[in-house]
Amino acid sequence: MTYQKLQNITLPEILKLEKRYRINFINSITGYKAASLIATTNENGAENIAIFSSMVHIGANPPLIGFVMRPLTIPRQTYSNIKKTGFYTLNQVHTDIVWQAHQTSAKYAEEVSEFSATDLTPWYSDNFPAPYLAESHVKMGLKFVEEQHIRVNGTILIIGEIQELFYPENIISKDGSADLNAIETVAITGLDTYHLPQKLKRFSYARPHEPSIEI
Amino acid sequence: MTYQKLQNITLPEILKLEKRYRINFINSITGYKAASLIATTNENGAENIAIFSSMVHIGANPPLIGFVMRPLTIPRQTYSNIKKTGFYTLNQVHTDIVWQAHQTSAKYAEEVSEFSATDLTPWYSDNFPAPYLAESHVKMGLKFVEEQHIRVNGTILIIGEIQELFYPENIISKDGSADLNAIETVAITGLDTYHLPQKLKRFSYARPHEPSIEI
Repeated sequence: MTYQKLQNITLPEILKLEKRYRINFINSITGYKAASLIATTNENGAENIAIFSSMVHIGANPPLIGFVMRPLTIPRQTYSNIKKTGFYTLNQVHTDIVWQAHQTSAKYAEEVSEFSATDLTPWYSDNFPAPYLAESHVKMGLKFVEEQHIRVNGTILIIGEIQELFYPENIISKDGSADLNAIETVAITGLDTYHLPQKLKRFSYARPHEPSIEI
Repeated sequence: MTYQKLQNITLPEILKLEKRYRINFINSITGYKAASLIATTNENGAENIAIFSSMVHIGANPPLIGFVMRPLTIPRQTYSNIKKTGFYTLNQVHTDIVWQAHQTSAKYAEEVSEFSATDLTPWYSDNFPAPYLAESHVKMGLKFVEEQHIRVNGTILIIGEIQELFYPENIISKDGSADLNAIETVAITGLDTYHLPQKLKRFSYARPHEPSIEI
């Protein structure tokens, strides 16, 4: 195998990059990310929804999902609503709502609901206090369980436990795997570029003396 | 807009699912993830490489990346190597190495190098102690800076600072964004399914009174 000649950049050079260039570069070079809309209410029931691309799987038993919040140097509605109410929802972004999802990142005034500003529809299940996004095919209701404050830069890892989950039944295979291609779930790079993934390969469980095969 | 009828599952039902089904379900329904090979050495220089899909962006200034390790209930070579040496690399997975990347998840004996077992090639830069994966188009050398132990399930968030970064020069646009489509970087769902994303749309910065446009 011959290898492509690669460019090299070091930490001191990264720190000297223009701010917006560095944000685009570091956020995009690191790979594809899930795009989710997090919906909350404040203590008066005012609804908020905002896009996040920093989800991380924490565990399956119990089902736990983390996401990283930027530092609390300015008021963060999603953070304060989660801390006040204890509940929030994660709503998956698909091709039909990609513009609206992106538009939730605009800095609307606190009294403006991003739902109405972006023409998205709040929906409530029978047993959960936070609003879901009606338009999403996959919606998860989470209970806040833990936060970790990252010392090195003040970001916060918020961890929630899935309380209920809504999904199209026909996307789940016999072994539990979800087919996100079928519902056109998108992936994101950087802060602004949305991609549609297509399945390439699925492999069997890898073992040392029985190499995994395509399934 | 009419909405698809969705299936509903609650936490008590999720907890009753068969273990492997629940792992597949929760890991895949939550969205696309980046796939990276983390390479390390132990204190004797023995090389290790293993696939992880739990990367999360922590910051751009300084450039920080996190990933989640499973609990230390069994020995974890990647974890102990990072703690002993202080350095590791993240190497992006693309279509040509997807089988080998998956195969690194097999439980090889401690004395076996996953590089040789899976026919992957270690490569060292001039100034960094941990091995890179020669075959990767995007390679990052990280210095360990922080760990956070998640109380709720014993997983560990490991945070590293990028010290140097290798990438094909022609994938970076004028504003710093990387074109991962061009180098066939893959995304993963669950533990075993690899996808090739294709760009759908890129939007301008979203503002309340000047809605974002496709760029």
